[in-house]
Amino acid sequence: MTYCLGLYLHDGLVLMSDSRTNAGVDQIALVRKMAFFSNPGERVIGICSAGNLATTQAVITLLEQRVQDGTPPHMLSCATLFDAAQLLGDTLREVIARDGQAVSAYGDPSASFLLAGQIAGEPHRVFQVYSAGNFIEASAETCFVQIGETKYGKPILDRLVTPAIGLADAAKCALLSMDATIRSNLSVAPPVDLWVCPADSLSVDQHRRFDDDDPYWQALRQTYSDGLCGLFEDLPEPDWITNASG
Amino acid sequence: MTYCLGLYLHDGLVLMSDSRTNAGVDQIALVRKMAFFSNPGERVIGICSAGNLATTQAVITLLEQRVQDGTPPHMLSCATLFDAAQLLGDTLREVIARDGQAVSAYGDPSASFLLAGQIAGEPHRVFQVYSAGNFIEASAETCFVQIGETKYGKPILDRLVTPAIGLADAAKCALLSMDATIRSNLSVAPPVDLWVCPADSLSVDQHRRFDDDDPYWQALRQTYSDGLCGLFEDLPEPDWITNASG
Repeated sequence: MTYCLGLYLHDGLVLMSDSRTNAGVDQIALVRKMAFFSNPGERVIGICSAGNLATTQAVITLLEQRVQDGTPPHMLSCATLFDAAQLLGDTLREVIARDGQAVSAYGDPSASFLLAGQIAGEPHRVFQVYSAGNFIEASAETCFVQIGETKYGKPILDRLVTPAIGLADAAKCALLSMDATIRSNLSVAPPVDLWVCPADSLSVDQHRRFDDDDPYWQALRQTYSDGLCGLFEDLPEPDWITNASG
Repeated sequence: MTYCLGLYLHDGLVLMSDSRTNAGVDQIALVRKMAFFSNPGERVIGICSAGNLATTQAVITLLEQRVQDGTPPHMLSCATLFDAAQLLGDTLREVIARDGQAVSAYGDPSASFLLAGQIAGEPHRVFQVYSAGNFIEASAETCFVQIGETKYGKPILDRLVTPAIGLADAAKCALLSMDATIRSNLSVAPPVDLWVCPADSLSVDQHRRFDDDDPYWQALRQTYSDGLCGLFEDLPEPDWITNASG
């Protein structure tokens, strides 16, 4: 399983992914699920993947090879981020057309993606690409998109995330959303890739990878966990409950 | 959709359900999903339902009719709560055998249940009955069971619930778990039925129904929401994040 999150904010964007992949509980490995396509100062595109690992690796590798080949269209030639999302969707369809039928006999070949970034001349944007290759764009009204194991990490986003929050707060929300997911689903695990991209920075400089023993990751989780227990103590007591009969 | 939760604790048990039922987004109604079978001082059994409404209503109604008929086996005649869970599973199979094939052409006929309570002479117990009619029992190791829309409300349980917490704390955890679910899924909604059953009370006295404007429900949600925002402010800052480029 996988958990990936994209936040679209006034100040920029946040992209996050975990690193666990599994085929059954007895075949577990770590992979990086966040890839970058970057021409610093001109464009920066981050892509997170969920779903069949052979499919997602084939899609990302084809996108990378085509950048190296230099024949448009490729991730560094697209005029807009909409075009980049379309190219990602087309490449997914290409891989499914090649492998889908053969793989279906053994399991689900499908995959989905988050694509986020900015190309100079347009604002920063965040897209969610479905298994069918079509996609939606995050907006001020719906400012986060998720793929993979999305539900455990959603309540904290519903409570705290608006497009107006700053990038540091957004990063904290994202990491807490990941923490909730990791605690509730064994098949989601660190290292956690987190990319914070301020509007117009056109850079991957603020990408960080959190291992389980990362001091910030540990301090954030511990502070939140302790705070939650303290908060719980302060909640109003249900005075109609007695421990004794009746 | 539905969200129901059962907590098995040293001090007793907690059972909770929401009240929304829907067949598509344009056909939404409220139903009570918690039923009681009680012989005060001798036994008390609570059952929560999720799934196809015709199926769950048929199962509960058959169980009630058979109590009225008085011919064993019925919910007030079972010797143990294990036998009661088996009777519930058998009755579900009976309804599916009658309606399953005809209903399948139009939708999913399946249903699942939580059954909790106590019969004098044995300890309090909590069961989850699957769509197949088989069931599992909660224990000190796995002290909560959920049916319906289970994921949004699980992180807070994973963080706070152990079998050793008191019944008042358990009730607060349950209500916060419901609050998280209601905020994240439109198809789960109040009134919320909450039954707190202290061990050996053999009574339904501590059953309460929370409408959206219930003062305790509102105070709990507001205190938690405010506290979470405050807690968030106190989290360690990610000092590697800047809002400006690079």
